[in-house]
Amino acid sequence: MEISAEREKELIEFASKYGLKFENIGLLNRAFVHTSYTNENSIDILESYERLEFLGDAVLKIAISDFLFKKFPNLREGDLTKHRSWVVSDKELSVFAEKMGLSKLILLGKNEEGLGGREKPSILACAFEAFLGAIFLEYKDLGLKAAYDFLIDNFENEILNSKLHNYKALLQEYTQGESHKLPVYKVLDEYGLSHDKTYVIGVYYNDVLIAQGQGRSKKDAEMAAAKLALEFLNVEIV
Amino acid sequence: MEISAEREKELIEFASKYGLKFENIGLLNRAFVHTSYTNENSIDILESYERLEFLGDAVLKIAISDFLFKKFPNLREGDLTKHRSWVVSDKELSVFAEKMGLSKLILLGKNEEGLGGREKPSILACAFEAFLGAIFLEYKDLGLKAAYDFLIDNFENEILNSKLHNYKALLQEYTQGESHKLPVYKVLDEYGLSHDKTYVIGVYYNDVLIAQGQGRSKKDAEMAAAKLALEFLNVEIV
Repeated sequence: MEISAEREKELIEFASKYGLKFENIGLLNRAFVHTSYTNENSIDILESYERLEFLGDAVLKIAISDFLFKKFPNLREGDLTKHRSWVVSDKELSVFAEKMGLSKLILLGKNEEGLGGREKPSILACAFEAFLGAIFLEYKDLGLKAAYDFLIDNFENEILNSKLHNYKALLQEYTQGESHKLPVYKVLDEYGLSHDKTYVIGVYYNDVLIAQGQGRSKKDAEMAAAKLALEFLNVEIV
Repeated sequence: MEISAEREKELIEFASKYGLKFENIGLLNRAFVHTSYTNENSIDILESYERLEFLGDAVLKIAISDFLFKKFPNLREGDLTKHRSWVVSDKELSVFAEKMGLSKLILLGKNEEGLGGREKPSILACAFEAFLGAIFLEYKDLGLKAAYDFLIDNFENEILNSKLHNYKALLQEYTQGESHKLPVYKVLDEYGLSHDKTYVIGVYYNDVLIAQGQGRSKKDAEMAAAKLALEFLNVEIV
């Protein structure tokens, strides 16, 4: 489909905010073309973001998996999977899309526009995934690295601060609800060379050591300790 | 966990059959350690293949998505997703694993062994995914490329010959069942420069043109035509 000079400028500026350069502007544009737009304008549906969304969905999954795998060396598969599911949910992706102001770039049919499509989490999430697919293709052999860097550089906090898996936040919520007291974390031990340290951290509640966790950073060790504390206290983690 | 010299040799030979070299033998070994083995032998469950399976599941998804996306430029998202789901199913992955003779490498607990775990499609599929995860990690920045090449070099036929999406096979099955006649494909048109050709192919049944499809290769155009013919004939594609 044709891309106006104004549209091209808008797309290039949008990408450059994230340090991304697209030689293939048609590819970048396609990430934001909803099927309601191609349908209404008799454009081939292959020019919509559908196929890029298919690809971007998988790009997102491997990037998040790789990140979580390395970030949490002590989490088991079940916990990693739960965390990943949360990050790749439409709800969370639409938050990422909103933070980027991505919705203004989406081309919608008039009918879908009238139905509030521009604010629908499902459409925002799909366009976000399609954008990842476009990055993956544009950067060819470095596509996964480019998509990974884009995600982590811009959304690392959001990816980590999954309420679901922020065990420290959950533990604090619980102890404050029970007794208005905060859990206290103390380093009990550390070993290994400076570039390969392991920390052992204990978590105290009402001055009693209720759990201890290990990790390659203090933060990881605290998380591990908080998780075990939640288990010890029989706090349900949904 | 400790790896005997014999086990190490077996692992290295297995990988080298696929042109793969692992410096990290512990990583390669872990891809084949079932949780029933770590449980029975009081080994940390993080030494089992669980986490690698989490990662390999995502590696598989992006590799297959990338392959199908490029191989079928005219398929819509729904068809690509169906094809991908079929390839990444436990059933299909266990076929890949069997072709490789991967099951003999799996370390199982005695109880699981007694239950026939070594032949369970779910265990074979998980170990296959874990192996992909191990390739991805071993080859670092080139991890995705190494996993992709491994998959396509060894299983391209299996990935393409999804009965579900082999529209030509389905059409032939149908016409032979109906009338013992084969569908006939003819090139109706071709246009574009030699490096960027588009073919238009018609499919005839009982000497009547029932559908035509386009593609960048004759094979793709035939597939597209066969798909439309199945729709024209109201043949259910499950």
